[in-house]
This record gives sequence, C-alpha cells and structure tokens, in this order.
Amino acid sequence: MTELLQGATRDEALAPLLAQGWTETADGNAIRKRFTFRNFNEAFGFMTRVALFAEKRDHHPDWRNVYRTVEVELSTHDAGGLTAKDIELARTMDEAAAHV
Amino acid sequence: MTELLQGATRDEALAPLLAQGWTETADGNAIRKRFTFRNFNEAFGFMTRVALFAEKRDHHPDWRNVYRTVEVELSTHDAGGLTAKDIELARTMDEAAAHV
Repeated sequence: MTELLQGATRDEALAPLLAQGWTETADGNAIRKRFTFRNFNEAFGFMTRVALFAEKRDHHPDWRNVYRTVEVELSTHDAGGLTAKDIELARTMDEAAAHV
Repeated sequence: MTELLQGATRDEALAPLLAQGWTETADGNAIRKRFTFRNFNEAFGFMTRVALFAEKRDHHPDWRNVYRTVEVELSTHDAGGLTAKDIELARTMDEAAAHV
C-alpha cells in the first residue's frame, strides 16, 4: 500500500484519474486537482467528508480552500511519491465531490 | 464593517493581532498566521469551528491545511484590503485555536 507506484502499474492507476481532471506535478511525486463548488457550504462539506476518510486511513491531503474552491495535492511523503494511498484518496475525493 | 481600516484605527486594531503572531502581507492588504496543532484531528476540528463562524458572518478565510498545520490569510476582497471583518475573524481563530 505504501510502495511507490512505478511503470505500468502507475500508468494504469493514474489513467482514470487524469481523465477526471487530476494532473501530475512536474516532478511526478504528487497529483493535483482543483474542485469548484457552488458555495462555501458545499466546499467545506466536501472537505469534511474527505477529512473523516483521510483520518480513518491516516493519509491526509495537502489542500487549500478559498471560498468555493478546494485545491488539492496528494503524495505519500514517507514513500517519496505516489502510492496506492494517493490513488484511493483521489478516487474518494472525486466520489465525494460528485455527491455534494 | 466593510470599510478599509486606515491610519490609527488600523494600527489599533492590528496591534493585538500582531502580538499574537499575525503578520501583514507586503502590500498590507491581508494578514497571515500559521497555526500548528498536535495532529490532524485538532487542525480540522479548529477549521470546522472557524468554518461555521465564517459562514455565519459570510466572510471566509483563504487557508491551507497540511496535516497538523493551518496557514491562514485574511482580507476583505470587496474592500480591497483589511476591514473590521478580518480583525473579527482573526480574533475568532485565535480564540478557537486556544480552545482546541
């Protein structure tokens, strides 16, 4: 779960996320996405649902909230890059954003 | 409430915040502070309390959370700088952080 994703395994895991608007950082060690909601209530509601999940998994996002937007960056610092934990958290965020 | 703070009024309003670790941005249009907690539970608990207050006042922070830290920037964009709304929100944040 905390092994760095590499090669074909990484490509396969990332493909569906890239199709959903996630992008890789220049160094390839993290993925980013900007979520936009209708208002602060929705943006912080999204963050709250994600926070509970992140805490349960003990894997937390780096995120910035400005009113109705939430910019997210995911990476597994212990591993020095992307792992399955980031993929799972990214999917959870997309799921949560779709149901706000 | 949404008038720009200027001159002595501004200095007086800012002084107690600067003493609590808030700093002015270079352009003077915002104030910043970095809050550090013991863990993510405390950091997000703080954010949740502040979010409810911000929503009630319809005045929201620009903030970034990375695990147990929360970096905050406050400004009143409609007014193009600092107003009493920012002072009130900053005080509320200090109060909330003190009671986590």
